Amino acid sequence: MSKPKVIEWVSGKVRIIDKTMLPQEEVYLDLAGYRDMASAIREMRIRGAPAIGVAAAYGVALGAQEIEAGSTDEFLSSLRSVSDTLAATRPTAVNLFWALERMNRVAEAVQDVARMKSALLAEAKRIDVENEEADRKLSGYGAELIGDGFTIQTHCNAGALATAGYGTAVGVIRAAHEQGKRIHVFVDETRPLLQGARLTAWELKQEGIPFTLITDTMTGHFLSRGRIDCVVVGADRIVANGDAANKIGTYNVAVLAMENGVPFYVAAPMSTVDLSLSSGDQIPIEERDPEEVTTIGGVRVAPQGVKVANPAFDVTPHRYISAIITERGVAREPYIESLRKL
Amino acid sequence: MSKPKVIEWVSGKVRIIDKTMLPQEEVYLDLAGYRDMASAIREMRIRGAPAIGVAAAYGVALGAQEIEAGSTDEFLSSLRSVSDTLAATRPTAVNLFWALERMNRVAEAVQDVARMKSALLAEAKRIDVENEEADRKLSGYGAELIGDGFTIQTHCNAGALATAGYGTAVGVIRAAHEQGKRIHVFVDETRPLLQGARLTAWELKQEGIPFTLITDTMTGHFLSRGRIDCVVVGADRIVANGDAANKIGTYNVAVLAMENGVPFYVAAPMSTVDLSLSSGDQIPIEERDPEEVTTIGGVRVAPQGVKVANPAFDVTPHRYISAIITERGVAREPYIESLRKL
Repeated sequence: MSKPKVIEWVSGKVRIIDKTMLPQEEVYLDLAGYRDMASAIREMRIRGAPAIGVAAAYGVALGAQEIEAGSTDEFLSSLRSVSDTLAATRPTAVNLFWALERMNRVAEAVQDVARMKSALLAEAKRIDVENEEADRKLSGYGAELIGDGFTIQTHCNAGALATAGYGTAVGVIRAAHEQGKRIHVFVDETRPLLQGARLTAWELKQEGIPFTLITDTMTGHFLSRGRIDCVVVGADRIVANGDAANKIGTYNVAVLAMENGVPFYVAAPMSTVDLSLSSGDQIPIEERDPEEVTTIGGVRVAPQGVKVANPAFDVTPHRYISAIITERGVAREPYIESLRKL
Repeated sequence: MSKPKVIEWVSGKVRIIDKTMLPQEEVYLDLAGYRDMASAIREMRIRGAPAIGVAAAYGVALGAQEIEAGSTDEFLSSLRSVSDTLAATRPTAVNLFWALERMNRVAEAVQDVARMKSALLAEAKRIDVENEEADRKLSGYGAELIGDGFTIQTHCNAGALATAGYGTAVGVIRAAHEQGKRIHVFVDETRPLLQGARLTAWELKQEGIPFTLITDTMTGHFLSRGRIDCVVVGADRIVANGDAANKIGTYNVAVLAMENGVPFYVAAPMSTVDLSLSSGDQIPIEERDPEEVTTIGGVRVAPQGVKVANPAFDVTPHRYISAIITERGVAREPYIESLRKL
């Protein structure tokens, strides 16, 4: 099995690997317009905060292609509606808004309609490339925190599939592995959408990194038995005081890690850092379809008509976070100062 | 839908409801011999520590029926092999061994082969009845800890389906509901085998007790947002110092509850208390089939050939347990004294 390109601009379309089909099938989708991209993000065919940022940028480039405008103002007005559609897909990952803002700035700087489309495409490609560079850099910094012989727990998927690059949390693990460190990974399945079991397990298997798959209920058991040396996760939004939103269940792992004296690291590019919010309780938490909880792969697992909660993210307060690993270096408490410095 | 009888002696056979088929189908199995009972316990067609105790007792009664022996010694020797087969099904729930010991004592006390079979059946029925009485008593004690308007989190299924009686943790919830207290329950799904989503949700729905189904990953989120007033769970074995083995993931909930200042209660009959062990790390933890993790309802959720861990239980150290609710009253720290007193 060759390594998939998560997202790629191919002759006027955007090709993505459909992450809802993994690991059973490696299905590629060619998205021809920005509305297709918005649907793909909403349906989590492409997911993970950094990947959503890259996808949104390409989405704007697709939207720009579709615009037939006589004037700059007309073009910018249509582009705003493209941007608004993409912005309305998912609320929590700040990379989405960060990428749209970068794309909008480029559009506003170019005064020529003919050049706007190519400038926007160029910017999307730049975001893509920079994103991968950031992954590799932060993975290098993170790998220094991983000792030889370590067993590392991760939650959800913060790998290449989530970042459209090298991975953040899984990037740290990959870098440590590439340095020749003998490591083992505990992958929790990450209900409801099983990104750990489906995506992280698939990526680690492809990389030849040894791992054990567990359910989310088993994390505390293995932490309490001294079987885990550190935890590394990604993030969807990190705010000024260091509080981090990430996939639901991350907070559980963080509390269990601290209770057992195990370091808990968050790995994310600076595009995930949102200094405009001062505290994690200001981060909007997406509530998703109850079906994600009541069915698994089309199989119903709960009685009909039950009430379900399905918050897609939780917030880990900064006091549980041992370090935040970015492409500009490793931040530690007090994050209110260290993040601003980076 | 009428309420199922979880386990019942019906004209020389034992009728159980097959819990692996719930909530999709209400399937009853008639077990004709002790080997069928051993398989049903091993395959978790009947499960939950107190229910396993009752099932083991009926298993011995079934086995006794099958024995053709000329002498007391011959009978007792055959009965030992019945007992050994049942004892080898599942290692963690102490109720299994407790029930087998009670049955063996009865057999040894009766010196007449002809009377042994009826004495053993009578003892199994007595265990069944006493078990239900214990449930009702402890549920009454536990309900006193539940305030009007409380939201209660539970894990796994410690309901009628698990105890073959009124329920322990769910019994406490039922009793509070029957007292007219306005309560709401958070039911976590309890991977891998989804006893929360499948069984507790089904029971609460039948009882008309309002609840919200969540994945195991969401517990911390709702605890940290002040949405849960207390946690009540069952137990598979409670040892002398108050450490309690229960379904995998219980320890996670206990740590998260303490971190958020929420009381964490364990509800179990005295048949679950094992004073012969001094500490929870002596409790044998069953490791089950990896397939339970990699597939859900027959649907594969992880790549082929991955390494899986599947401990079925974890141990919650006594310092996380606010109280242990039994049919003889509510024990609190120091458990080493309070449990012995009960």
